[in-house]
Amino acid sequence: MTDALVSYLKTHTDEAQSLLEQLCRQPSIVAQNLGMDEAADLVKALLDDAGFSTQILRVEGAPPAVYGELEGRSPFTLLLYNHYDVQPPDPLDLWDSPPFEPTVRDDKLYARGVSDNKGEIATRLAAIRALLATDGELPITIRWIIEGEEEVGSPHFAALAEQYADLLRADGCLWEGSGFDSEDRPDITLGTKGLLYVQYEVQAMARDAHSGGAATLPSAAWRLVQALASLRGPDGRVRIPGFYDDVLAPTQAQLEVLADQTDMEDLLRKMYDIEEFVDGLTGLPLRKRQAFSPTSNIAGLLSGYTEEGVKTVLPARAMAKMDFRLVPDQDPQDILRKLRAHLDAEGFDDIQVTDLGGAEPVVTPIEHPFVQRIIDIAASFSDKKPSISPITGGTLPLLGPLRRYVGVPGLSAPGNAGYWASGAHAPNEHVRLADLTRAVRFNCHMFEGLAAD
Amino acid sequence: MTDALVSYLKTHTDEAQSLLEQLCRQPSIVAQNLGMDEAADLVKALLDDAGFSTQILRVEGAPPAVYGELEGRSPFTLLLYNHYDVQPPDPLDLWDSPPFEPTVRDDKLYARGVSDNKGEIATRLAAIRALLATDGELPITIRWIIEGEEEVGSPHFAALAEQYADLLRADGCLWEGSGFDSEDRPDITLGTKGLLYVQYEVQAMARDAHSGGAATLPSAAWRLVQALASLRGPDGRVRIPGFYDDVLAPTQAQLEVLADQTDMEDLLRKMYDIEEFVDGLTGLPLRKRQAFSPTSNIAGLLSGYTEEGVKTVLPARAMAKMDFRLVPDQDPQDILRKLRAHLDAEGFDDIQVTDLGGAEPVVTPIEHPFVQRIIDIAASFSDKKPSISPITGGTLPLLGPLRRYVGVPGLSAPGNAGYWASGAHAPNEHVRLADLTRAVRFNCHMFEGLAAD
Repeated sequence: MTDALVSYLKTHTDEAQSLLEQLCRQPSIVAQNLGMDEAADLVKALLDDAGFSTQILRVEGAPPAVYGELEGRSPFTLLLYNHYDVQPPDPLDLWDSPPFEPTVRDDKLYARGVSDNKGEIATRLAAIRALLATDGELPITIRWIIEGEEEVGSPHFAALAEQYADLLRADGCLWEGSGFDSEDRPDITLGTKGLLYVQYEVQAMARDAHSGGAATLPSAAWRLVQALASLRGPDGRVRIPGFYDDVLAPTQAQLEVLADQTDMEDLLRKMYDIEEFVDGLTGLPLRKRQAFSPTSNIAGLLSGYTEEGVKTVLPARAMAKMDFRLVPDQDPQDILRKLRAHLDAEGFDDIQVTDLGGAEPVVTPIEHPFVQRIIDIAASFSDKKPSISPITGGTLPLLGPLRRYVGVPGLSAPGNAGYWASGAHAPNEHVRLADLTRAVRFNCHMFEGLAAD
Repeated sequence: MTDALVSYLKTHTDEAQSLLEQLCRQPSIVAQNLGMDEAADLVKALLDDAGFSTQILRVEGAPPAVYGELEGRSPFTLLLYNHYDVQPPDPLDLWDSPPFEPTVRDDKLYARGVSDNKGEIATRLAAIRALLATDGELPITIRWIIEGEEEVGSPHFAALAEQYADLLRADGCLWEGSGFDSEDRPDITLGTKGLLYVQYEVQAMARDAHSGGAATLPSAAWRLVQALASLRGPDGRVRIPGFYDDVLAPTQAQLEVLADQTDMEDLLRKMYDIEEFVDGLTGLPLRKRQAFSPTSNIAGLLSGYTEEGVKTVLPARAMAKMDFRLVPDQDPQDILRKLRAHLDAEGFDDIQVTDLGGAEPVVTPIEHPFVQRIIDIAASFSDKKPSISPITGGTLPLLGPLRRYVGVPGLSAPGNAGYWASGAHAPNEHVRLADLTRAVRFNCHMFEGLAAD
């Protein structure tokens, strides 16, 4: 960093916060289609103001996406991905200040979206403004796509990526960002698991019966419980034939970065008040399980009487929701077919399965030059060695289409000001103000680093 | 019946209906402690008016119970059991007329409680009034207990039966009554199954987690599903060791009356829109299963996200409700101990089991002289042979205490005006007016019949 940049950042510590407050004051709840046009206009205006040439990308059925481009000095072209939409703020009564009135308490800024994901729009923009103010132009060319549907699974991102692939091509992409971990090590994430989300339904009778009839009338709840139980062995492994066929073994390089990660076990144990993780796992085997195992998770379960006390009912219907997290090279549609085949083979053809959405697992190899470059840049930011996740348990549905139609290699780097307790999606979402300024500095450092030969 | 009685019944066809409307206009929702004192006062006044010497029986914590006694000519003493409390009327919007404003439509009387169980108070009282009006005294001595807690499982009936055992002794007891079946055969029921109602709870973590953590964080929903699945084999049999130890085989006499029952299969298949009963059973094997098999029924199931669409959550908690219907000589407390032992033995000591109530199975043997007498009386009522149930799938929790503290043999005989589609506990509960007058006649016939040598 030049002295001018260092000095600019020192005298403009409030800039990211001010941009962020502006963004958070504008509600943009995609699930309720609330404030989407206004929020897109605001984002576009902020990019225009910084000097980007911008346009609104429109795809049938989707809220507007904002696109901006600003040429820089070196030939390196970087694609930035963010989203301006946010989760609904409910339950409102658990917020200590109104979710759309950004409020500072104890050196933290509270508002819906402040961490996920408006904070990163602000820190990236603040870094860009600082570089432009002190150097007149950017060190690299930046293309920036800011969509408005991430919180509902980016259902139109495939159409957008296909239609506007030319605008999105770049030498590397920074996805929605990571932060610094509990030991202040820069967190770099190279992929996300895929997803298959299904709903199971059984309708065994036209109406509920008195449970006195349970000896001879069919039970939807028992059918569902037995069907679910058939999906998982006592060892926790998924029993669907072929489920693990396409699972790739971790590479040596992936296992090495896993072994070098910051230990989060105590923190997680405290957070969830658990004595141990599944199967008593700890250390590398625990991290390996978390990173490379696909899952079958019961996200919801409902049948019959669920209020307090006693009702002797034989319920006519039962329902479950399940999400499978998938790892490379599992394919959600292939898993769905195998699930259906398994249920049929086990005699559960009365269990209706509805596909509520899928996403492919996407992982960028550690060996990719863009990954190595970001790792080096992150390592040179402070005396803290980066902590690298080859793949996380969550899912970014847009990554599949981005890979398919654009093909740009990507990762998450710590340009985001959130931290492990930011409460994304939860009440009292917040960022620490000190993390905001650090994220701006990191983004400056990263954009400059990518320009170096 | 004397000519005077026949003529009285002909000229007083509205009496039962008028008494019933009076009773139904007075709400008496025990679950909400609504109108209980007023309803007990009304019942007592109606008995007083008929000539009974009455008293209110009080037990700590229970709504008042009404007791009445009226001496008759012969030495036979009959105990009548009824309850004046009713189920809550919700969902209110499904009623075509207000539940506490008795309304006649298409020769049916609609109101909450009109079938369960105020209708029987009215038809018994109308019969008693008719006998007194035409004969000056009753043919038998009648003792009558009318409690106010049946719809919540009669939790204080044991205390009441113990404290007032002397008032309740008799040569035979008519429980809450049955009616006539779909072929107009008098229905006589000799017992009810027992009950053990439990709630299962698992708390695997302090809070819900993002389902991305499902590979390494414990799942309450999976623990519950697997624990439930361990309780039942693929053949539908309960897998708790010792569960069937005390189950008595049906007697030859019980099987014979079962074989002679009216065929209800088509009716039930239509009602529940099912193709077949469990295991494809039909005929005597179906009746045998329904009558003599204990059950494990999942009455409720709840975990995680149960609204529409997708939420990728790993729920911290899961809950199920289960009712076991028990047959002689199973004991609810013994079954509860065996259930806990089974879960512990299978490694499910994290599943919390809460006892929400139990009741003993109670069956009066067909061979008992009181039973034989009622069967004969019912057979002589019309040209229709009685249809006899050795035991029903439902449960009357008061029968255990009644047997334990009083010891009077009992059964259900068709003094009740309800029929299979009366909708007890459901919206638009109703009785057919023609059934009301038939029930009054049957009660007259039965009271007279018990006086005969």
